[in-house]
Amino acid sequence: MAASSQDSTVFRATTTAPVNIAVIKYWGKRDATLNLPTNSSLSVTLSQRSLRTLTTASCSAKYPTVDELTLNGKPQEIQSSKRTLACLSNLRSLRQALEAADASLPKLSALPLRIVSENNFPTAAGLASSAAGFAALVRAVADLYQLPQSPRDLSRIARQGSGSACRSLMGGYVAWRAGSLTDGSDSLAEEVAPAEHWPEMRAAILVVSAEKKDVPSTEGMQTTVATSNLFATRATSVVPERMTAIEEAIQNRDFPAFAEITMRDSNGFHATCLDSWPPIFYMNDVSRAAVRLVHDINRAAGRTVCAYTFDAGPNAVIYYLEKDSELVAGTIKAILGATADGWDGPFYEPLKNFTAPGVPLDSVDSRAVEVIKDGVSRVILTGVGEGPISVNDHLVSETGDILSQ
Amino acid sequence: MAASSQDSTVFRATTTAPVNIAVIKYWGKRDATLNLPTNSSLSVTLSQRSLRTLTTASCSAKYPTVDELTLNGKPQEIQSSKRTLACLSNLRSLRQALEAADASLPKLSALPLRIVSENNFPTAAGLASSAAGFAALVRAVADLYQLPQSPRDLSRIARQGSGSACRSLMGGYVAWRAGSLTDGSDSLAEEVAPAEHWPEMRAAILVVSAEKKDVPSTEGMQTTVATSNLFATRATSVVPERMTAIEEAIQNRDFPAFAEITMRDSNGFHATCLDSWPPIFYMNDVSRAAVRLVHDINRAAGRTVCAYTFDAGPNAVIYYLEKDSELVAGTIKAILGATADGWDGPFYEPLKNFTAPGVPLDSVDSRAVEVIKDGVSRVILTGVGEGPISVNDHLVSETGDILSQ
Repeated sequence: MAASSQDSTVFRATTTAPVNIAVIKYWGKRDATLNLPTNSSLSVTLSQRSLRTLTTASCSAKYPTVDELTLNGKPQEIQSSKRTLACLSNLRSLRQALEAADASLPKLSALPLRIVSENNFPTAAGLASSAAGFAALVRAVADLYQLPQSPRDLSRIARQGSGSACRSLMGGYVAWRAGSLTDGSDSLAEEVAPAEHWPEMRAAILVVSAEKKDVPSTEGMQTTVATSNLFATRATSVVPERMTAIEEAIQNRDFPAFAEITMRDSNGFHATCLDSWPPIFYMNDVSRAAVRLVHDINRAAGRTVCAYTFDAGPNAVIYYLEKDSELVAGTIKAILGATADGWDGPFYEPLKNFTAPGVPLDSVDSRAVEVIKDGVSRVILTGVGEGPISVNDHLVSETGDILSQ
Repeated sequence: MAASSQDSTVFRATTTAPVNIAVIKYWGKRDATLNLPTNSSLSVTLSQRSLRTLTTASCSAKYPTVDELTLNGKPQEIQSSKRTLACLSNLRSLRQALEAADASLPKLSALPLRIVSENNFPTAAGLASSAAGFAALVRAVADLYQLPQSPRDLSRIARQGSGSACRSLMGGYVAWRAGSLTDGSDSLAEEVAPAEHWPEMRAAILVVSAEKKDVPSTEGMQTTVATSNLFATRATSVVPERMTAIEEAIQNRDFPAFAEITMRDSNGFHATCLDSWPPIFYMNDVSRAAVRLVHDINRAAGRTVCAYTFDAGPNAVIYYLEKDSELVAGTIKAILGATADGWDGPFYEPLKNFTAPGVPLDSVDSRAVEVIKDGVSRVILTGVGEGPISVNDHLVSETGDILSQ
C-alpha cells in the first residue's frame, strides 16, 4: 500500500471486554514492573450484557504524531502511564514482526494511535474498571494490527497494564498462573472452563452507598508483601491448595465446594490486609452484614446456595446458581425493596415476579438486614459470560473523529 | 478448734482484683478443659482505682451445705459452672493439705463457702469481667484459707476459671507462659516487670455505643484453631518472636517498640479471626476509625505516642505515656467533647485543663473523627496498676449476711 493512500485512511478495530471478579484473589507482586504476582488467582468473567468496556483502536497518518487515549470522554496523559506505554510498545513490536515478514502489509506500526474507550457502568459503582479497560485496549489494538496471537499470548501483555486485566481476555472461568520465570513469560491467563461449561453461575453485586464508605486506609498490596507475618503462608501454601480445589469444583460444577473456597479465600485475603503494617481495611460494617446475610441464607436453605467475595473495597459480590435465584436474589430484593437502584437489566427478568423473600427474613440476623437496607445503594445482577467480542460500534468515525455512545 | 465453736463462726477474707488488657493476645486453647493456650500472651494490669472486682470469700458451718456464689447481687448456678467448681476444688485441696499437716488449724475445707462479688464497672461497658472475677475469687478463697502459695502458683488455678484470669493475679506487666506439659503445670503467669518499673503507662478505653455494635458473629476461639489456615503461623512463629521483643521493650521502657508490637499483634489476632470459618468479626467501623485516629495522631506528633489494641469486641484500648496525655487523651477529649461519659475519675485530673486537642484535628481523617464522635459512648481513663489487694470492705457480714457496696 502506497504511503499516499495511507495519508487519509483511518484504520479501526473495536471490541468489548468484560469485568472479572476473582474467587482466588491476586494480592502481592513478585515483580512490580512486569506485574508478576506472588500467587496464582482465578476469576469468573462477568457477562458483558451487564458490564463492559467498549474500546476502539484506530491509527492513521493524519493523526498528530503522539498516541492518544480518551477514556469516558476525557483525554488521558498517555505519556505518563508507563503501563499503557508498555502494552502499546509490546503490541507494536508484534505488528512490526508481521510487517517485516510480509511487505504487502500496511505499515500500521509506524502510525500514531487514537484509542477511545467507554465503560457502560458508572464510576460511582466502585467497580475496578482497569481490568476490563486494559483487556479491551490490548484486544482492540491486537485486532487493529490483525495479530495472530492467542488470548493466552495477549494476556502476557494485558498483565503489564493491570495484573487482573489478563483474566478479562477470556470468558468463563479463568486462571492466572503466577509462573516462576523472571521475565514473566510464563505468567499468563488460561481458560479453566468456558462459560458454557457452567452457564448457570450468577452474581449479585451489592454496591455500598458512598455515604457508608469506610474511613480510607493507606492501601497497597506491596505493604502486605513486605509487612504481613501471615502473607507468606497464604501465598506459598494456602492459595496453591485452593487453586487445585476450586478448579476441581468448577470441573465438577460443585457449587458448595466452589462457594466455600471462594468465601474462605476472600476472608483470608482481607485477613492478610488487616495483618499488614499499617493495617489495610477494605470491608466495612455493610460488607460484614453481607457476610452474615450469606451465611444466614445458607443456613436457612439448609445447603450452600450463595457465596460472598470482596475485592479491594466494601462492595459485596454474591455468587449463586440460577436455580437458586429466588432464595438468594429474591431475599436481597426483599431486603432492599425499592431503596436500591439496579433492579433491571438482562438478568432481572426471572426475578420480576418475586414478591416474597426466598428465605424468611426472620431467619436472617435483623441487624444485618437493617445495615444492608441502609447501606446498599445499588444492585447489579449479572452472571458468567464470554470474553472480548469484536463489534462495529466504533468510537472513532471513518474520518478519525471521536464519537460517543 | 472445737466443732461447736465453729457452728456460728463466719470466716471471711476480702480482696480486690484488677482487669488486664493483653498486648500479645491469648486466642486458642491446646486443652479446653485445663484452659491451656496455644501461645503465650502478655498484658498490662490496669489500675484498680478505675476498674476492679471486689470479692469476699466466707465459710461457716451455719451456711447451707452447698457452696454459694453471688455476682453483682445475683445468685449464680455454681453447680453448673465446671470452671468455678474446678477452682474451688483445687483451693480446697490445698487447704486440706495444710489442715492435714497442722491439726490445730480450723477445718475450713469442710465448710460450705459463701462467695460474694461485685464489679465497679457497668456490664454495659463491654469489658471482659471474667479475668478480674476469677482472679478475685481465687485470691479471696486463698486468703480465707491462708494458703502459702505464691500468685504464680495460684495463677495455675485461676487459669482454669478463665484463661486470662491468671494474668490478673499480678500487677504491672504480666506474661502468661503457654507451657508445654499436658497437665498444665507449667502454664502460668509471671510478672515481667512491676508497675513501678514503668508507672507512666496510661490507657484510654473507648467504649463503643450499644447502638453502634456490630452484627453479631458466631464466635469461638476454637473455631480459629480448627479452621484458620493462618493461625498456626501466628501461634508457632509470630507470637514467640513478639513475646521476646515486647518483654525487651518493657525492660527498656521503649514505648515506640511496645506500641508497634501491641498494634501489630492486635491486627494479627483479628486477622486470624477473619480467616476463621465461618469468619469471626469483632472490630467494626468505630474500631477502625480508632485505628485511623491512632495512626494519624502518631503521624501528626512525628513519633509514636499511642497504640491501639482490641479484644474480642469493638472497644478500643489506647495505650500512651503520661507525658503524652495532652497529645493523646487531649485529642480524644476534643473529639468526643461532652458526648461521652467517663471524663472523671482518678486519672482525669491532669486532663481537666486541656481545652484544645493535642494535635490539630485537621491532621486527623475527618471521617474517622465523625465516626468516633458518633460511635463512642464512654471513655475510661486508667493506667498500669497493682495486683489484687486485701481489703476490709467485706461483702459478707460477721454473721454471714450478704452486704452490698
